[in-house]
Amino acid sequence: MTSVDPQHTGPAPTFLEDFRHMSSFGATDGGGVHREAATEADHATREWFAGWLESQGFTIGADRIGNLFGTYELVPGAPYLLMGSHLDSQPMAGRYDGAYGVLAAAHAALRLRDEAEAGRIEPILNLCVVDWFNEEGSRFGPSMMGSGVYAGVLDEQAALSTTDRAGVTVAEALSSGPEMPAAQLPTPAAYAEIHVEQGRELEDAGTPVGLVDRTWGARKFRITVRGDQSHTGAALMADRRDALYGASLVIVAVRELCHQFGDDELRTAVSTLELEPNSPVTIAREVTFQADLRSPDESVLDTAAQMLLERLAEAEQAASVTITHELTHSWGQLAYSTDGVALARKAAESLELPHMEVMTVAGHDSTTMKDLVPTVMLFVPSVDGLSHNEAEYTRDEDLVRGVDLLTEVGRRILDGDLTGPVD
Amino acid sequence: MTSVDPQHTGPAPTFLEDFRHMSSFGATDGGGVHREAATEADHATREWFAGWLESQGFTIGADRIGNLFGTYELVPGAPYLLMGSHLDSQPMAGRYDGAYGVLAAAHAALRLRDEAEAGRIEPILNLCVVDWFNEEGSRFGPSMMGSGVYAGVLDEQAALSTTDRAGVTVAEALSSGPEMPAAQLPTPAAYAEIHVEQGRELEDAGTPVGLVDRTWGARKFRITVRGDQSHTGAALMADRRDALYGASLVIVAVRELCHQFGDDELRTAVSTLELEPNSPVTIAREVTFQADLRSPDESVLDTAAQMLLERLAEAEQAASVTITHELTHSWGQLAYSTDGVALARKAAESLELPHMEVMTVAGHDSTTMKDLVPTVMLFVPSVDGLSHNEAEYTRDEDLVRGVDLLTEVGRRILDGDLTGPVD
Repeated sequence: MTSVDPQHTGPAPTFLEDFRHMSSFGATDGGGVHREAATEADHATREWFAGWLESQGFTIGADRIGNLFGTYELVPGAPYLLMGSHLDSQPMAGRYDGAYGVLAAAHAALRLRDEAEAGRIEPILNLCVVDWFNEEGSRFGPSMMGSGVYAGVLDEQAALSTTDRAGVTVAEALSSGPEMPAAQLPTPAAYAEIHVEQGRELEDAGTPVGLVDRTWGARKFRITVRGDQSHTGAALMADRRDALYGASLVIVAVRELCHQFGDDELRTAVSTLELEPNSPVTIAREVTFQADLRSPDESVLDTAAQMLLERLAEAEQAASVTITHELTHSWGQLAYSTDGVALARKAAESLELPHMEVMTVAGHDSTTMKDLVPTVMLFVPSVDGLSHNEAEYTRDEDLVRGVDLLTEVGRRILDGDLTGPVD
Repeated sequence: MTSVDPQHTGPAPTFLEDFRHMSSFGATDGGGVHREAATEADHATREWFAGWLESQGFTIGADRIGNLFGTYELVPGAPYLLMGSHLDSQPMAGRYDGAYGVLAAAHAALRLRDEAEAGRIEPILNLCVVDWFNEEGSRFGPSMMGSGVYAGVLDEQAALSTTDRAGVTVAEALSSGPEMPAAQLPTPAAYAEIHVEQGRELEDAGTPVGLVDRTWGARKFRITVRGDQSHTGAALMADRRDALYGASLVIVAVRELCHQFGDDELRTAVSTLELEPNSPVTIAREVTFQADLRSPDESVLDTAAQMLLERLAEAEQAASVTITHELTHSWGQLAYSTDGVALARKAAESLELPHMEVMTVAGHDSTTMKDLVPTVMLFVPSVDGLSHNEAEYTRDEDLVRGVDLLTEVGRRILDGDLTGPVD
């Protein structure tokens, strides 16, 4: 399906060609992709990618939760450097988010394999390319499902039983896809991932490469507003307990929490909403949604969460509803491995790539993997910081530089720079 | 299934027993019913009701749009007094709304038939009991679908092709129900309907019977807010074009329009919402909902609609979105036939029932029928004015009084009091 010339000094043309082809699966009219986890478009992408890996001599296999592994043994019995990201997308989303990192990992692994087989490097680890299943979590919650199960932080059976809005389970959706051989789970020694930034820090700084050193903190609340059904016309306004009015007051308040803090100290959003009964002439009895609060500063998050609770109480009064909330996600400013950041810096310097340390606001499979093994996380710029949008865009030269950097990072990890000697 | 003793002076016990039985179809734990149009619960109710009519000697038949007619010819070739309402319900709704009027019509028709056959009245019209299909419009829009098609104000083919959220058409949903003989459409001469008030005017006044003389005015707008997808965390707040934030600002504004007017001059609601893509980490690109404005005063509606447009422009600015609107429904204060109201008043007086003229805020099948033939619309009280709610309640004595009143109204209409002599 592709061929690599070991004399060729860079994978650039082939990588971009492959990326263009891969972006045709689930392509949207607006230049993006629509391939939520375990849909036909996701299945087709994975099938193509598995074929690509196989044609390059990798051994492919999937685990029960649908992570797709392509392994190549260079050092019999040694543990693995895993590199990867995710092929699934949000609805009507960009073609780079996740998919770029998976194909970059494949091309980097191919180069490293060729270098090892040509005797130009002496790896102490084996190679594994991964497509983590369902990173996005838009069809099946939670996000980062595949890497979470692999790392043991999510229960496999619970994940397989999760249903989408149509009642289809993850297990059923996976079984509707192409059959994959059962994977021999690779023993991990280190993990490396590259991703588009999805924000505009690199772009605004004019820096082509980001070395991710920390995450923003986040608090996510599941909020349920309970009112009572009545007729949209016949009921007196004073008698109404309108759950959608109550929810709208809260959604506005969540958004406007940001006004209470300094520039970019807090980002907030509500992007989901379930409404019962959603009928033209019946006041809503129940609305459920998720409030997403993020900050680089945990004390800002604490203050914002406290303010949110006050807004909930005000909305309860104004709309004559009851509002309950549940903290579903909470994490602080989490550090990536300092050794990993140091290794990535040396790699960027050796390639003479301008670079900077950046925090990630979004979660990634590396957020989970970094707690399992030493991990390197790299960013390339997103034009206008736009993501989860068909118009998401990263320049070709940044994509290619990213593959070069990931390859150099992998080269150093294979050399033992991150793990030290392994058994 | 039921028996009527012609010597028995009132249908009360039998009516209440039948009503209790009918309320078991689609019954909810909270004492209501959940039987949206052409669902299994609606089909089961209609099948039982058709059997009831047949067992009483009525000829049953349905038209293509699913209106169910039970006719009884007393005067060969004469046109018909139609009496009825609707058996379908909102989701998780009350057991009285619509269903009370259909069963009341059946019991009234039975009494009138027996009186005619015993020679105690000399009708100039025939009798027809109707269950109008899909009055609620919660599953398939628009509401009052069956009566609208019958009256020629809705296109039958368009109505049959309407889909629910799962993509099922009205035609498909109807064909999944019990087979009904094709109706010989009864030529209408007059229409009478009784319904629970759904508001609290009768209840607050302590009056058991309402004679509906007018409708409130209404304006309904379909509002679409268009933003742009982005990441709920990674996108800068300033870059966001959040359609759900914009929609929430409008929903709050719609509700709070009421504050600009005097007590109960305006009622407003938003109760539906469609959200794309409705994903936990992707800012909404599009939200669509319906704003429902009602007033007894058309000038209030005009002013409120103007204010709403100003709020839309403000929300566009605040959320960096574009908002379009479409006026989907508009009607003023519409009068019911004054002759019909006068006839109903005489009927109530003859039964010594305290009564008052009331406006209807809700739409009914009679709203359509009144433009086709002379129409009488009657209300019985709703406790606490509660409707479209499982806890909807009307006292037994009010139900029974209502059947008596509808029977007396029918008796007078059969006598020619509303139509004069007919061919």
